[in-house]
Amino acid sequence: MFESAEIGHKLDKARYKREEPKLRRALLEAQYELLKKPESSVLVIVGGVDGSGKGETVNLFNEWMDPRHIRSVAFGPPTNYERERGEMWRYWQSLPGKGRIGIFFASWYTDPVVSRVTGRMGRAAFARSLERIRRLEFMLAAEGIVLVKLWFHLSKKAQRDRFRKLSANKRTAWRVTRQEWKNHKSYDKFRDVSEDALRETSTGAAPWHVIDGSDNEYRSLTAGRILLDALRHRLDGEKTVIPAVAPVAAAPLDGRNILRALDYKRTLTRAKYDERLDELQAKLAYLSRGKAMRNRSLVLCFEGMDAAGKGSTIRRITQALDSRHYRVIPVAAPTEEERAQPYLWRFWRHMPGHGQVAIFDRSWYGRVLVERVEKFASEIDWMRAYQEINEFESQLVESGAVVVKFWMAITPEEQLKRFKARADTPHKQFKITAEDWRNRKKWPAYERAVCDMIERTSTDPAPWHLIAATDKLHARIEVLEKLTKALS
Amino acid sequence: MFESAEIGHKLDKARYKREEPKLRRALLEAQYELLKKPESSVLVIVGGVDGSGKGETVNLFNEWMDPRHIRSVAFGPPTNYERERGEMWRYWQSLPGKGRIGIFFASWYTDPVVSRVTGRMGRAAFARSLERIRRLEFMLAAEGIVLVKLWFHLSKKAQRDRFRKLSANKRTAWRVTRQEWKNHKSYDKFRDVSEDALRETSTGAAPWHVIDGSDNEYRSLTAGRILLDALRHRLDGEKTVIPAVAPVAAAPLDGRNILRALDYKRTLTRAKYDERLDELQAKLAYLSRGKAMRNRSLVLCFEGMDAAGKGSTIRRITQALDSRHYRVIPVAAPTEEERAQPYLWRFWRHMPGHGQVAIFDRSWYGRVLVERVEKFASEIDWMRAYQEINEFESQLVESGAVVVKFWMAITPEEQLKRFKARADTPHKQFKITAEDWRNRKKWPAYERAVCDMIERTSTDPAPWHLIAATDKLHARIEVLEKLTKALS
Repeated sequence: MFESAEIGHKLDKARYKREEPKLRRALLEAQYELLKKPESSVLVIVGGVDGSGKGETVNLFNEWMDPRHIRSVAFGPPTNYERERGEMWRYWQSLPGKGRIGIFFASWYTDPVVSRVTGRMGRAAFARSLERIRRLEFMLAAEGIVLVKLWFHLSKKAQRDRFRKLSANKRTAWRVTRQEWKNHKSYDKFRDVSEDALRETSTGAAPWHVIDGSDNEYRSLTAGRILLDALRHRLDGEKTVIPAVAPVAAAPLDGRNILRALDYKRTLTRAKYDERLDELQAKLAYLSRGKAMRNRSLVLCFEGMDAAGKGSTIRRITQALDSRHYRVIPVAAPTEEERAQPYLWRFWRHMPGHGQVAIFDRSWYGRVLVERVEKFASEIDWMRAYQEINEFESQLVESGAVVVKFWMAITPEEQLKRFKARADTPHKQFKITAEDWRNRKKWPAYERAVCDMIERTSTDPAPWHLIAATDKLHARIEVLEKLTKALS
Repeated sequence: MFESAEIGHKLDKARYKREEPKLRRALLEAQYELLKKPESSVLVIVGGVDGSGKGETVNLFNEWMDPRHIRSVAFGPPTNYERERGEMWRYWQSLPGKGRIGIFFASWYTDPVVSRVTGRMGRAAFARSLERIRRLEFMLAAEGIVLVKLWFHLSKKAQRDRFRKLSANKRTAWRVTRQEWKNHKSYDKFRDVSEDALRETSTGAAPWHVIDGSDNEYRSLTAGRILLDALRHRLDGEKTVIPAVAPVAAAPLDGRNILRALDYKRTLTRAKYDERLDELQAKLAYLSRGKAMRNRSLVLCFEGMDAAGKGSTIRRITQALDSRHYRVIPVAAPTEEERAQPYLWRFWRHMPGHGQVAIFDRSWYGRVLVERVEKFASEIDWMRAYQEINEFESQLVESGAVVVKFWMAITPEEQLKRFKARADTPHKQFKITAEDWRNRKKWPAYERAVCDMIERTSTDPAPWHLIAATDKLHARIEVLEKLTKALS
């Protein structure tokens, strides 16, 4: 990958002076076009060897364009707060919204590359990390983010010369730290590892651009032009048409499915319910405050047709929790800010730290439920979501989260009964809207989407629990049982 | 993944009799439409547990549709001939051409799943295999193949019952072998491993469909309907539009690049050339007939601008080889049969077995050279090719091939000189055509494509060698040196 960057590129200062103003103007123009037609955002990922001019280039980008719409983020070692929310959490928090430009100094590449260089990470784990990055970037690109990945390179000799020159001058000596000389010693290893990383992650959707960092003028103009190319390509480029793939599954021919196969007849007496509720809430209270939760978080996800009893079940859980430690997140239509981001963004932001509980009343599964049924997401988009969600949850689990997912199942007849009861009870009328009746008409489509969802996202680390919820008391106890079991 | 298949699906025979003729007719109709508008092909991949009706279903497909345009392939354990050409070689050989339907019994899934069940394959290697499959299927889908992946499932109990029933009847007892009872014992392990495999490879581009295999009527109609859905979706489905991504690199601003940085001034005297040629050809003759070649093949790839001297260099190599063991493959425009296949197909077919040498005069790199420059391939297609080619070559290397790639470099001035010499020499006139002059006009575009190619596909297992070829004698010796070095 570094062949071209090592032959030594240079640009004379006169030419730079001539071309820089033109490039600036074109960049600024493109930036404003992006702001006005915000279908995409741009994420510049900056990497490379020490002393190769990464910082200078990013500073120039901010100078050339309108810095109010650029967000540059330098990621240091993760804090505990960040780590507890999953390796990728902090990057998600910093993604640029539609119309905007984000610049990541260091990024999801830093940790795998550095860990591999120091030997802390083995070959297999490194390959897995790169594969995870490839998937992440594929998703971000599919969600409308233009990824501009710039790698600034210096040959070993060029790096040494640069360090010596900086060190020799009193005014610049501070820029070369002991750490940098130390890194210089493992230059060859770093070169090998980063070359592997670049090659493995240079995909059609998100290619790397390697830039010779040795000459300031050449480097600056080249980086600026790559960014401009990427912007203009998105703004004016020809779109590609890809043919349709058949969606995951049709409804079973015999009308049987996993939802209809549930036993909706089980009930619980009030007395038995009260007794078990006490027991289980006590157990949950104990478990959620226990030692084990110190290195763990709990993520609960409740899904179900309207009026299935999600809210009342959640209340039976929160009664046992300490209000300082949990948060219920009711998920409705996304806000404007949320719509400007990849669909998982608005869920990442609510991820709890260790010792904390997040309870989602509806969740990221909206992507493959309502967004599929109502055609808010295109077929190709919701079809890729199953794997993306599995990957998302497996990252949560890796960072210490216990993920428990409940589908509260009722029959269409039971739903009708509950709708009518709501409509007839003055203090419950607010709970039933015209939209509920509209959704009800799409029951078969939702049912099909739910069956696909369960089949494709019930994983070992984050399984689905199907709860037959005709009898509310029985359902609540069953949820508490599954939950305490998952926690212990 | 198996939730729905385990609740027990059934279809009554009367309904089957009613619906089967309709399905048949629709399938046949779709098959003929596909034949008439051959933009895509269909590959049905069949997997599942023993006794789940895989064979019966494939037989039905052949009965329902026109079997002349269907090719069903059952893959057993690979022969040596197949293995020497790489794990995936035999699957490539059997891909259906555009307009046609292929059915794979067992497939690239069989070996990883079986190896993992028996413990021959570890977790990490299994994950790598699945990742490789995901990439392969992504490429095949992008190349226009509709992948219909059908997994036939039986619960453990249903499998036992089926085996017992078959065994009890004299006329069907032969269908249950000792091996099948043995497999039944590792049912649980098989279920776990295959569930992982299915989930990991159920992508948006190529989702799995799990079918309950316990009831003949339900199974047949369901499988047929999934195939019909996939066909109709491709024939009538809405296409998706995806926005452009900026291509890999612009030409360097200072006009310097890895080709121009070569030293074109080196020469060799005829006397020195003759001496070295003798030495190196002797060495090559020895190495290519040596013991080490018994478990190895040699794949040589020659690329270069027109008149760079590829042909004459190749002759200096073949002079040292045994004509029974090598083959020169001149690559020109693809044939009709080749155009009906993914672009790598026509190269896979020529892969040599152990002890054999394949010399490609131009190669799969046409994808990122002529197809890119002449716009025969869309941007999105040639941009994904770099990774696909790296993956392809790494598979060759894994199967024992030594892959050596040469770029024969000349300057535009040298090319002009050679073109004129060809035009002026009667016995060389056939070597120069109007197209050569046309290509010459696109020199800058080709140069840019070559630089991108070298940067993105010069890998550790299969590096590029850039040969400055102004002096033909020097270039030939350099190629022979690199080649003998790579072999020893």
